[in-house]
Amino acid sequence: MFISLEGVEGAGKTTLIQKMVAYFGSCGKEVLLTREPGGSELGKKLRGIILNAEEKICPTAELLLFLADRAEHTETCIAPALAQGKIVLCDRFIDSTVAYQGYGRGMDIDRLNMLNALATNGLKPDLTILLDLDPEIGLARATARNIAQNLTVSEGRFEAEALEFHQKIRTGFLTISRREKRFLVVNAAQDADAVFADVLKALERLLEEKESE
Amino acid sequence: MFISLEGVEGAGKTTLIQKMVAYFGSCGKEVLLTREPGGSELGKKLRGIILNAEEKICPTAELLLFLADRAEHTETCIAPALAQGKIVLCDRFIDSTVAYQGYGRGMDIDRLNMLNALATNGLKPDLTILLDLDPEIGLARATARNIAQNLTVSEGRFEAEALEFHQKIRTGFLTISRREKRFLVVNAAQDADAVFADVLKALERLLEEKESE
Repeated sequence: MFISLEGVEGAGKTTLIQKMVAYFGSCGKEVLLTREPGGSELGKKLRGIILNAEEKICPTAELLLFLADRAEHTETCIAPALAQGKIVLCDRFIDSTVAYQGYGRGMDIDRLNMLNALATNGLKPDLTILLDLDPEIGLARATARNIAQNLTVSEGRFEAEALEFHQKIRTGFLTISRREKRFLVVNAAQDADAVFADVLKALERLLEEKESE
Repeated sequence: MFISLEGVEGAGKTTLIQKMVAYFGSCGKEVLLTREPGGSELGKKLRGIILNAEEKICPTAELLLFLADRAEHTETCIAPALAQGKIVLCDRFIDSTVAYQGYGRGMDIDRLNMLNALATNGLKPDLTILLDLDPEIGLARATARNIAQNLTVSEGRFEAEALEFHQKIRTGFLTISRREKRFLVVNAAQDADAVFADVLKALERLLEEKESE
């Protein structure tokens, strides 16, 4: 089972992921917890370049770096883990490209879908959890977190963008979620326990379906 | 005027480029001498990853990294230099992708042409000089050069491939050259002066054409 998590900055993905990992552990399931960019060995090298707000990169090169990261990640991490029967939990995947580069930067959506299919060899998640949140709240949370963790701009390429950009991304995620059946949209303005309760219902249903297959 | 140089490893691109730069200098032309991968600031970081034979990268990720390098290089180096009226001399460009990843690694040629167009925003060279050489001779030259310069495998991803791979690439370059009018195919088994004399004839014709435009 392949689950991706999506959402604007500060939507609460990290907190939710921790709860999900604990839940799967309590069910005795083996989990690969991973993320994009940066899930593979190559990706670790690329992440520092891609997310560094001080690194000037043109939009097309930025897109192609994310896709290179995804291709290596899918081929060397996600697909092998799925083949071993593990649950793969991935912080951002194909939909972030469509939301950020498509709805955010204005690139052609059909072309991005085609490039995603090239990078993943057609692999899509079984479930995509979209933590939906007003980006004004999300960015405030992300800023507070960065200050608390003493983070610099080194991973802040997108956080440094204007609020309007993040609003386009939220709209983009919601638009994709209406087109793809695999989406669970969760109200991320709720507290973390309520978010997890919503997710748990979907997870239990999905696990039942998978086991009856 | 945009000129690219292509050919198998050890075909003599570096020697030819030095002669071409000296020639353009003697004509009072401003030249941007550049290369792929690695022509841009981003590219310098990517080159060390892309060409390192010890870095395991799946074929699709390899392709996408070359394209990311090309997108940044075209946008930030080649296009601005052409806009300033400079002659751009580029060691490898779009045809290397089609020859290495297409004819060498077996990827779909039409898809590679489409991806090249995405990365370059449709820009193609005015002249592409193909230094054609039996790869057996080329690889022997490249190995001798690497030993002489005390180079390790750090830039040897393609040199480390089997001879059969390089023969596919030679065939690939020759096939592309028959389809695209911009190609000048030069017999690189000749000595360096004879190679340059062949190139000079084409250059003088091209400069005349450009000046009469």
